[in-house]
Amino acid sequence: MKRERILMGHGSGGRMTQELVEGLFKRTWSNPYLDQMLDGAVLEVGGRRIAVTTDSYVVTPLFFPGGDIGKLSVCGTVNDLVACGAKPLYLSAGFIIEEGFPIDDLERIAFSMGGIAREAGVHLVTGDTKVVEKGKADGVFINTTGIGIVRDGVDYRPDRLEPGDAVIVTGKVGEHGLAILAQREGLNFSTPVTSDCQPLHRLGEILARYGPAVKCLRDPTRGGVATVLNELAQQSGRGLVVREGDIPLDPVVAGACEMLGLDPLYLANEGKMVVIVAEQAAAAVLDDLRRLPETRDSAIVGYVTDEVPNMVLAETELGARRILSLLESDQLPRIC
Amino acid sequence: MKRERILMGHGSGGRMTQELVEGLFKRTWSNPYLDQMLDGAVLEVGGRRIAVTTDSYVVTPLFFPGGDIGKLSVCGTVNDLVACGAKPLYLSAGFIIEEGFPIDDLERIAFSMGGIAREAGVHLVTGDTKVVEKGKADGVFINTTGIGIVRDGVDYRPDRLEPGDAVIVTGKVGEHGLAILAQREGLNFSTPVTSDCQPLHRLGEILARYGPAVKCLRDPTRGGVATVLNELAQQSGRGLVVREGDIPLDPVVAGACEMLGLDPLYLANEGKMVVIVAEQAAAAVLDDLRRLPETRDSAIVGYVTDEVPNMVLAETELGARRILSLLESDQLPRIC
Repeated sequence: MKRERILMGHGSGGRMTQELVEGLFKRTWSNPYLDQMLDGAVLEVGGRRIAVTTDSYVVTPLFFPGGDIGKLSVCGTVNDLVACGAKPLYLSAGFIIEEGFPIDDLERIAFSMGGIAREAGVHLVTGDTKVVEKGKADGVFINTTGIGIVRDGVDYRPDRLEPGDAVIVTGKVGEHGLAILAQREGLNFSTPVTSDCQPLHRLGEILARYGPAVKCLRDPTRGGVATVLNELAQQSGRGLVVREGDIPLDPVVAGACEMLGLDPLYLANEGKMVVIVAEQAAAAVLDDLRRLPETRDSAIVGYVTDEVPNMVLAETELGARRILSLLESDQLPRIC
Repeated sequence: MKRERILMGHGSGGRMTQELVEGLFKRTWSNPYLDQMLDGAVLEVGGRRIAVTTDSYVVTPLFFPGGDIGKLSVCGTVNDLVACGAKPLYLSAGFIIEEGFPIDDLERIAFSMGGIAREAGVHLVTGDTKVVEKGKADGVFINTTGIGIVRDGVDYRPDRLEPGDAVIVTGKVGEHGLAILAQREGLNFSTPVTSDCQPLHRLGEILARYGPAVKCLRDPTRGGVATVLNELAQQSGRGLVVREGDIPLDPVVAGACEMLGLDPLYLANEGKMVVIVAEQAAAAVLDDLRRLPETRDSAIVGYVTDEVPNMVLAETELGARRILSLLESDQLPRIC
């Protein structure tokens, strides 16, 4: 009998990742924190709600338009803390470095992390450095683990979704994924596509003012907006409908996706959030978000419904509907 | 001009690692937590002292006598929390997996992590899975980041060392390093050498009872006991003297080290602690530690002195003294 092996798709964030995580890690480690299967864990420590989230970054190339692995490793983890409803406070950083890696490049990465951490108001408090032989890694891999305090009055959980809630996307989708792809494949577009890599700590502050009217946040990185909408549908048991024409999309990204046969809804973002908000608060939230530079292109793109439980539908401008399913694997590996 | 590149020694835990960390990360990220340069950071969160520590595990081979990378990734981080004076509570786990890695092996590793986590009383609360192409990693790398609550009355800092303090080593040294070396090189000893990989959470509980009489703890992994003693000497400005004859050492390990020209004081341990205790409490602490199975071979091996500031001396049974210096690099890479 052939023994099963890990495939690239197991790291895609799509269905294969979900099956691996649920079938293996959740089964063997089961506990009330892990079993929630959120972007991070919310823990009780000394009477306070602490959010913890971890990510290893293996992006290739290490430097790309709009960022680098260092900036990404800070923004990604800060944004996961924001998605937990937490004020990001502290990050740890674990480096695995390939022998022969230029120290200048490591310095650029460290500077980049330091700068963006200051911008996001977090401290890099502890670290670890491991080196492996040439050919046993790919330049550098970085793990960051983030710690934050969950803000008072905030409770972001998919099971709080209700029919009528609005789905907000906080800006143009697919830019990070396409920027990585273009850099990797040497593609040139009329206007260069830049990664949207940015920290969303201020978005967290704004949303907290709305208390329980904000139901759930998701960081649409691997697998893009379509993947997190599917997770929300599965975990809430509700349906979600998005109006394709309302999704913020840069014309260059739209054109490139059409040319390359990619769906921008499945492309990774590194500075966007999917926000589910109670219907009556949606307009005010949108208004507030549009005042922040990093979320100025926010839009209400759809709604929660009980019409199609556990499913995500995309509605075209002509009213046709198609199922936005969870991909088996990813369109593009190693984007974060 | 030749650009400088990362060498294996930069990951050794010795002088090269220290220079890289201080010259690069500390310089670019400087903040009060990081600047302490401890095994982990102690943070104020919601009025409580929280300890956070991170390590990436790149050990090769992945399975070895006495453990595997999974067990190691839990014990190593639990023990770093203990070294911070904390009760270990939660771990995150970030996997970087090479395409083609057998899922059975991943399952063994996950089971191993789950089992030892339960034993140590910690929860694996959140995780991340990344996959890289075949040839871009080495099987699997695991980052674990640990969170614990610093116990009341405990304050482990090298600047609390005073002349006369006793140096305790909590068991036989060098077993993990030698077990890995033997497995890697196919060496056979009269009695097989097994890694000492074990969690030391109960040691933490016992030492906390002694409050401020316990001055500082260090986990002697990479670079072994000699390396952590050198860190303590540098960070405290004090000198440390160890009596070679008093250091707990298995005869098989002693013989193998002699044959291979290795110094067991520089070999990695994964289930031992170096404990600095006030003179008057030393005998009682030793007595308590010897009652625990995992620290039954504890011994007082030396003392703190102002005779030789910033230095570590080893005293032979005949009274001769030699300097135990910080190695440039390691005797053996990738042992954790």
